[in-house]
Amino acid sequence: MDKKVKVGIVGASGYSGEELARLLLTHPHVELAAVTSRQYSGQTLAQIFPRFGHYPAARRLRFSEPNIERLAAEAEIVFLALPHGVSVEFAGPLLAAGCQVIDLSADFRLRSAAVYQEFYGHAHPAPELLATAVYGLPEVYREAIRGARLIASPGCYPTSILLPTLPLLRAGLIKATGIIADSHSGVSGAGRKAELDYLFVECNESVRPYGVPKHRHLSEIEQELSLAAGGPVIIQFTPHLMPVNRGILTTLYLAPTRHFDDAAGAAALNAEVAACYQAAYANEPFVRVLEGKALPDTKNVTGTNVVEFAWRVDPRTGRLVVMSAEDNIVKGASGQAVQSMNIRCGFPETAGLM
Amino acid sequence: MDKKVKVGIVGASGYSGEELARLLLTHPHVELAAVTSRQYSGQTLAQIFPRFGHYPAARRLRFSEPNIERLAAEAEIVFLALPHGVSVEFAGPLLAAGCQVIDLSADFRLRSAAVYQEFYGHAHPAPELLATAVYGLPEVYREAIRGARLIASPGCYPTSILLPTLPLLRAGLIKATGIIADSHSGVSGAGRKAELDYLFVECNESVRPYGVPKHRHLSEIEQELSLAAGGPVIIQFTPHLMPVNRGILTTLYLAPTRHFDDAAGAAALNAEVAACYQAAYANEPFVRVLEGKALPDTKNVTGTNVVEFAWRVDPRTGRLVVMSAEDNIVKGASGQAVQSMNIRCGFPETAGLM
Amino acid sequence: MDKKVKVGIVGASGYSGEELARLLLTHPHVELAAVTSRQYSGQTLAQIFPRFGHYPAARRLRFSEPNIERLAAEAEIVFLALPHGVSVEFAGPLLAAGCQVIDLSADFRLRSAAVYQEFYGHAHPAPELLATAVYGLPEVYREAIRGARLIASPGCYPTSILLPTLPLLRAGLIKATGIIADSHSGVSGAGRKAELDYLFVECNESVRPYGVPKHRHLSEIEQELSLAAGGPVIIQFTPHLMPVNRGILTTLYLAPTRHFDDAAGAAALNAEVAACYQAAYANEPFVRVLEGKALPDTKNVTGTNVVEFAWRVDPRTGRLVVMSAEDNIVKGASGQAVQSMNIRCGFPETAGLM
Amino acid sequence: MDKKVKVGIVGASGYSGEELARLLLTHPHVELAAVTSRQYSGQTLAQIFPRFGHYPAARRLRFSEPNIERLAAEAEIVFLALPHGVSVEFAGPLLAAGCQVIDLSADFRLRSAAVYQEFYGHAHPAPELLATAVYGLPEVYREAIRGARLIASPGCYPTSILLPTLPLLRAGLIKATGIIADSHSGVSGAGRKAELDYLFVECNESVRPYGVPKHRHLSEIEQELSLAAGGPVIIQFTPHLMPVNRGILTTLYLAPTRHFDDAAGAAALNAEVAACYQAAYANEPFVRVLEGKALPDTKNVTGTNVVEFAWRVDPRTGRLVVMSAEDNIVKGASGQAVQSMNIRCGFPETAGLM
Repeated sequence: MDKKVKVGIVGASGYSGEELARLLLTHPHVELAAVTSRQYSGQTLAQIFPRFGHYPAARRLRFSEPNIERLAAEAEIVFLALPHGVSVEFAGPLLAAGCQVIDLSADFRLRSAAVYQEFYGHAHPAPELLATAVYGLPEVYREAIRGARLIASPGCYPTSILLPTLPLLRAGLIKATGIIADSHSGVSGAGRKAELDYLFVECNESVRPYGVPKHRHLSEIEQELSLAAGGPVIIQFTPHLMPVNRGILTTLYLAPTRHFDDAAGAAALNAEVAACYQAAYANEPFVRVLEGKALPDTKNVTGTNVVEFAWRVDPRTGRLVVMSAEDNIVKGASGQAVQSMNIRCGFPETAGLM
Repeated sequence: MDKKVKVGIVGASGYSGEELARLLLTHPHVELAAVTSRQYSGQTLAQIFPRFGHYPAARRLRFSEPNIERLAAEAEIVFLALPHGVSVEFAGPLLAAGCQVIDLSADFRLRSAAVYQEFYGHAHPAPELLATAVYGLPEVYREAIRGARLIASPGCYPTSILLPTLPLLRAGLIKATGIIADSHSGVSGAGRKAELDYLFVECNESVRPYGVPKHRHLSEIEQELSLAAGGPVIIQFTPHLMPVNRGILTTLYLAPTRHFDDAAGAAALNAEVAACYQAAYANEPFVRVLEGKALPDTKNVTGTNVVEFAWRVDPRTGRLVVMSAEDNIVKGASGQAVQSMNIRCGFPETAGLM
Repeated sequence: MDKKVKVGIVGASGYSGEELARLLLTHPHVELAAVTSRQYSGQTLAQIFPRFGHYPAARRLRFSEPNIERLAAEAEIVFLALPHGVSVEFAGPLLAAGCQVIDLSADFRLRSAAVYQEFYGHAHPAPELLATAVYGLPEVYREAIRGARLIASPGCYPTSILLPTLPLLRAGLIKATGIIADSHSGVSGAGRKAELDYLFVECNESVRPYGVPKHRHLSEIEQELSLAAGGPVIIQFTPHLMPVNRGILTTLYLAPTRHFDDAAGAAALNAEVAACYQAAYANEPFVRVLEGKALPDTKNVTGTNVVEFAWRVDPRTGRLVVMSAEDNIVKGASGQAVQSMNIRCGFPETAGLM
Repeated sequence: MDKKVKVGIVGASGYSGEELARLLLTHPHVELAAVTSRQYSGQTLAQIFPRFGHYPAARRLRFSEPNIERLAAEAEIVFLALPHGVSVEFAGPLLAAGCQVIDLSADFRLRSAAVYQEFYGHAHPAPELLATAVYGLPEVYREAIRGARLIASPGCYPTSILLPTLPLLRAGLIKATGIIADSHSGVSGAGRKAELDYLFVECNESVRPYGVPKHRHLSEIEQELSLAAGGPVIIQFTPHLMPVNRGILTTLYLAPTRHFDDAAGAAALNAEVAACYQAAYANEPFVRVLEGKALPDTKNVTGTNVVEFAWRVDPRTGRLVVMSAEDNIVKGASGQAVQSMNIRCGFPETAGLM
């Protein structure tokens, strides 16, 4: 581990690119060797992101136009922090040039080109790559990540929904039908785009749903839930925008397989859920299952790679309510990508993330 | 209407009391003649709420200790903007002294003393008054409000849930089972209390659930839903705190009675829902049913007495999703109380509220 | 006053245009008869600003392309809520067509075409109109406004600086030299423009100066201060952006003409300042001079046409510190324009503004 | 450096105590061995601050009642994060028991007990300690800090004012008279106190001055400016509260000793200021002097120990305007205290702070 691994970021001028830069600038085992941006080419990282100004590397490193050969010469691992549909233009050529690729877009998250077409409205431009990509959710695919050359890092909403739900589904504690996910995201989730809808005055003192009822992220959520359930799963998902910079709070409404309508039944289910989460996550460094009266709060996870969640069994309704919180830009994007890189490179999994 | 009706506010130092004062100071048909507050007794309304300083009445009117005789002498209508459990101490004596009472607390919202005990943890102190109180939701109880002496103004969450749900339930378009309400409220909903949990730094950049799974407001929500359904209704309700001063955004997950799984079925249901809302609310001045692609947004209702909502039929899940927005302090509290007063007094229903 | 005056807004899609629409929709003596917007032509006011949806007029009135003849046919008074440099294209033709014009831009605020050129970087396109325009600060130019055909409504920063400073300067209580104005504005002051700098994530949790040291508003501030002082005044002005939707807080550092360095001298000056403000503003409906320990707070003026201020005499430094607060979009823009209209039309000055 | 130094925090339940805990939990050369809080005694650090839940040490370490012997047994260095007037009760006994003390309160920042009495309204309870305390501003007192047993860590406002001003004063580039500091602070500066003034609803959408004109922090600011100027300095200082969690933005109005009124004079002064700052801060790891068009922005320093500033020479007024930004809880409190600890212990000065 003496020699640092050289890494690059394509599309480093958005919010997840910026956060990747922050994490990689301070990572003990890598050197951030290339950042690209058409818009800011020629300027240093510190000029565009003044908060990096006290890192000497950020004052030296300049944005360049994205160029495959140059990237392949400068970096062993390339992160793609690009809009959906753009990553696919870079992934194949970079892999061909010998790089490992960690993509933060949705381009390689689906196993099925047909599902991609249904949700994204056009044929997948490189369907042959879908088979080789590994869905970069370390708590589920850690072993596959170790050997992956193309990692498709999960979306922010999917991470907040999948981590609390998958173990319950696998253990048969909840039904595969009737799952509802109600999510609220900070505005950074919309990206660093100059659009009226995301102006301060339009978002401050505002809470609003959007993308109802068929948000694109449903495709990868349902893919992973279906794999866990062993059959097709369709869920209800409602994203909302809320006036914070960072954070996703998801509330999940789940139907237990066990019927109960009294305190004893609720207590039994409660114990089963506790045991299920304990088995799944006791040794996971970035999953925090809350105990006692604690409920998740986005402010307790922002700036960290941790997802935290709590659950309540409701004897009045016979339902299980699970609530999760994460930083949409860290565990929901860049932190998770770095976690995958750590696994892939054999670094300690928490390196650069604590 | 030449002579103004004299009104008073007991407990005018909280957020709903302050908003009541704002509405009553500018109301064309009433005179705000008394405001009480133990804490601020002797100070003018304008001293405690500097934003009222340009109303001459607010520079004259002083807070007094709450006193039944004095209130009865000074005001024909008394608003109680007090914590739950305190209103009940004032309502009976004020009624006995000849006042009409509009209570903003939960003390008189339930018809059943037993349900009160279940949710509030102690016996109702004046169960005989429960029978005489009218639930002050004008869109449902307008006629009863006209003759009421004791009006129990609904809670903020209940208003945001009941108005979109009741017509569907009455029309038999949705099942009475499986209703889920996921609500997000601004911090003013917690009241003007000096508690760590509601400090700026604790709420800003934070979103968090609370009161899961059995919030007290469930009791009045389920009471009114049960009346509409003609049988007992139990719902799932999750309140969250979000960093805005005002506003509630509620997302409702409802099960249509009609089964459908294709676009045609969805379109048919869609038309039925539209007709149902049209029949219920076309002439309501404070209900805005959104059309086309519009979705509710708290910033479009804050400062107004309007509740707005939109719905989406989801052919993938067979579910109906309804989203509503209101100002928790106006339509969810003080504006609604003024609307009831307007009805009770024969004023135009929108007087002082546009 | 039975017949309502017809008014129009050119450029009604920005924040000051939207606020003008809100004020004019509810004004008792006018009818909003025309709103123009190239971008939204053909859509109703309520479609673009859903918060106006409960006003029937807003559901009927459609944005049109700006057209002089049509505007002159539809409206007696036309408000120009346009970017600097665009208003000037409309003002002359509208005046020629017989309209009265109230301009919210900076195009007609300066008496000197040379000063305009210095601060705006190009020759004034219609210098002949500068002589006829009246600076629409009612507390100073009420009489001139009564007869004006072209009213140049003041900027937001200038209003917050001029109202507290002019009486002191006229009374000779402060020196004309060394004036410093440190201002903080809400983000709506930047306009409804899709620029990265004003995204929620860029403004939230951020406070920053801009336009240092020669902001364009200096030109009108210094013009009016110079008129009051009877000689040229140059001031130091630093605007900052702060994460609120609305509001300007200005702190002024002033040098009293009277030298003092003890409590007695401070008390004497204090009394003189109080008397000066009392003489200037005791009868002004929209100026609130705070007493006692009260200090201005933007939250006490947002949504109102009030500017409030307080002062402190500092015996340690011999200086006078004055602090003012206003809503940049109301008293700093649209409310002030309506106030001028009320004066011009002989309506009660507070009509539609309380 | 193999053995970690044991440290403790007295009063770890406030915002600066919490931030100290965060910094010390992740510091490579220390072990956080004791945290005290009367209110939370017996509970773990992670129970009170859930965001620390993924640090094993935070799940083990419990708050205890503050006790001198126990603290002295458990920690070599004790941080006091206590209210003003309380630290003094602990400092003497802890020093007597052999600890080194780093105090974050104002209790030991003044050299003169008389000045303390003037600003704090009572006699200093331990004036003999004032002579031994070192003002913990590393950029000025680095050498003294190396040998200090009692370090008085500076206040947040003073840090933001002193660092940009001291070099100019020492170099004779500005006059010692007429200095004005206009500061805006995030709400965490008010501490974690359950008071109405700091509720979310009272601070959000609000900007307001306070403590005008004689804030207590003036005493230490003027002490340090006077030492740099070689004679008494009195300044004007206006603090304001703004709705962000963290950050101070200070705008300084300074009078250059060199008279100038044209571009050439301004350019000459500009070069002198640049050279002065270059000489003072080129090698300082936590001072960022901005170049080009960049202006400070609190969002670029929050979460870091960096203070950044920029300046503008104004040929119109002959004045120098300097603007600085810092995180009030890091460089303005806990980060600076850790920086002093690093110096005192011989650790790399940036250890645990990058």
